[in-house]
Amino acid sequence: MTTESFDLYPVTRLAAVREATAKAGLDALLLTPGADLRYVTGYSALPLERLTCLVVPAEGDAFLMVPRLELAAAEHSPASRLGVEFVPWDETDDPYAHVAARLGSPAAVGLADHMWAMQSLRFRAAMPAAEQILAGTALAPLRMRKSPAEAAALREAGAAIDAVHAQVPGLLRAGRTEREVGRDIADAIIASGHASVDFVIVGSGPNGASPHHDLSDRVIEAGDVVVVDIGGTMPSGYCSDSTRTYSVGEPPADFTAYYEVLRRAQDAACAAVRPGVSCESIDAAAREVIAEAGYGDLFIHRTGHGIGIETHEEPYIVAGNTEPLAPGYAFSVEPGIYLAGRHGARIEDIVICGEQEGERLNNRPRELIVV
Amino acid sequence: MTTESFDLYPVTRLAAVREATAKAGLDALLLTPGADLRYVTGYSALPLERLTCLVVPAEGDAFLMVPRLELAAAEHSPASRLGVEFVPWDETDDPYAHVAARLGSPAAVGLADHMWAMQSLRFRAAMPAAEQILAGTALAPLRMRKSPAEAAALREAGAAIDAVHAQVPGLLRAGRTEREVGRDIADAIIASGHASVDFVIVGSGPNGASPHHDLSDRVIEAGDVVVVDIGGTMPSGYCSDSTRTYSVGEPPADFTAYYEVLRRAQDAACAAVRPGVSCESIDAAAREVIAEAGYGDLFIHRTGHGIGIETHEEPYIVAGNTEPLAPGYAFSVEPGIYLAGRHGARIEDIVICGEQEGERLNNRPRELIVV
Repeated sequence: MTTESFDLYPVTRLAAVREATAKAGLDALLLTPGADLRYVTGYSALPLERLTCLVVPAEGDAFLMVPRLELAAAEHSPASRLGVEFVPWDETDDPYAHVAARLGSPAAVGLADHMWAMQSLRFRAAMPAAEQILAGTALAPLRMRKSPAEAAALREAGAAIDAVHAQVPGLLRAGRTEREVGRDIADAIIASGHASVDFVIVGSGPNGASPHHDLSDRVIEAGDVVVVDIGGTMPSGYCSDSTRTYSVGEPPADFTAYYEVLRRAQDAACAAVRPGVSCESIDAAAREVIAEAGYGDLFIHRTGHGIGIETHEEPYIVAGNTEPLAPGYAFSVEPGIYLAGRHGARIEDIVICGEQEGERLNNRPRELIVV
Repeated sequence: MTTESFDLYPVTRLAAVREATAKAGLDALLLTPGADLRYVTGYSALPLERLTCLVVPAEGDAFLMVPRLELAAAEHSPASRLGVEFVPWDETDDPYAHVAARLGSPAAVGLADHMWAMQSLRFRAAMPAAEQILAGTALAPLRMRKSPAEAAALREAGAAIDAVHAQVPGLLRAGRTEREVGRDIADAIIASGHASVDFVIVGSGPNGASPHHDLSDRVIEAGDVVVVDIGGTMPSGYCSDSTRTYSVGEPPADFTAYYEVLRRAQDAACAAVRPGVSCESIDAAAREVIAEAGYGDLFIHRTGHGIGIETHEEPYIVAGNTEPLAPGYAFSVEPGIYLAGRHGARIEDIVICGEQEGERLNNRPRELIVV
């Protein structure tokens, strides 16, 4: 982590997390390696079977349980800035019992959303009277509302993945396989400044109708429509995710019939973003346009997902989510239309809610790109 | 997955898993994406917030809950060979309630060892009367005992990482940073036939004394000892992991004093491998040699971990683990000696227990390699 990125993981965050813990009615958060721990500390601890866990009591001092052989790594990590006690444990110690003893008899604890069962069940055995709920209950309200530094990091990620999409027309050619194109895109994701490639979907022809298809050895043919959905993680820890749909030569007539509908739907959902509007109404804004044109059954997924230090995090832009948007909420707007066995299309931008309206963090052309 | 690798994930395994589920006193296993699901099905499902879960009842038919937009991927995966029902669910369905309704009132369910809290707590809410224990209770006894096909896959992984270590002397030079060397090693891991790089530790000088140090910008100097611990995953899904210690020019005298002790300790532990011997006695075999030479306090971690479709899995070679070895058990033997602030050394081979004795799957020289 560079000095500049300390703004992304400010030491003051721990106090806000403690306050949120109390407000959520939890006695403590138990944060094992993953996004929740990274959010609070900036520490990208290895996810291992040995327990590393930041314990944040609603009252009292936080401490980090750490396997003794991870101690040096923890001490060199940004977690060392927080001034919390590091409690190393040895190979034959029981770190779960240690946490339980320190916490006394908690009534409710919050588990990191991605805590492994091998750990949550040990915590349950060590604190049988403690109700376990998700740490996200306390953390999601904080994590959803991106700070100016976080918004800047997402803007930087958006520009980097836009630079990759700008190269895609030069990579997509009849005769190449999806996998060949995907490999070049992965290289471009790194070359554009990402620290890692998170996913590369190149869905050509009928594969474009499977929203989570990744790469295959299918040879791209003239007349194919190709869905390209790509993303990575920047050195800041913040993620990119953007989809554009390309056509290799002239697209089929049954495709052009719906592509413009999709483009209007995506525009409508982006235009609907403003503080106070519910997540489900953003989903509805896209869905209505598609349904009115008679393609409602072919839009088979939610409109989007939150994004930040995880590619998928809260808020989810889906029917039933009444959470009102607020300034700093960042999420994808990515409606799709999928004609099974034929082709599909998706257009995806990351949008961040501002004080008045949404700001798109991806800005490549949304018209069908014929290569 | 290629046709040959079907031997690695035989369809007959499901029946063995069902039997193990009953034997462990569980009414069903709930296997979310990760190693447990991959072991049973060969399906490398994406770990997503949307629930994908193979439900294996002790009695009755297994079924796969799958988000509708993952259905095509699941149908194209090796899971389709198993003849189990695929149950797609839509964005606004509750898949947890669906599983609960199908299972009736289970008394005990086994959760995939890496199931996320966001899923295990939903299952708990949907089946409040079911005791949750680890699926590993049923699966570990199966996963630990590698089949001949699995042993062959681990042997292939061992040869591939040995080929990388063979190149390390050409990459380690005074004046290069750990990160530069690590980048070249990562490239070599892929070039040697791995599908992915799992970790690259280049611990030079004092960094070698931190067992889980990864890479830094430290410039390697003449006279540095360098611990190189590397591994990846093969296209088969099976993992490699091997450590050698190198010296850039003549090593310091306080290092040569303990390196030969370490080499003898690692030999002793490998030589102790045979069916019926406990895991902790393999740990003790290494530890005794080091302790007798007066370095006991500097061997700060267990002797090893099981390996297969995860780099770290059961059995753990650690004090307190009385599990007796059996033919097919595969694990690392990797004692280390660490002199804080100065340097460290570790020697690691994967060993598989045979009918009579252990077989080392890594075979690069174990003497100190001076480059």
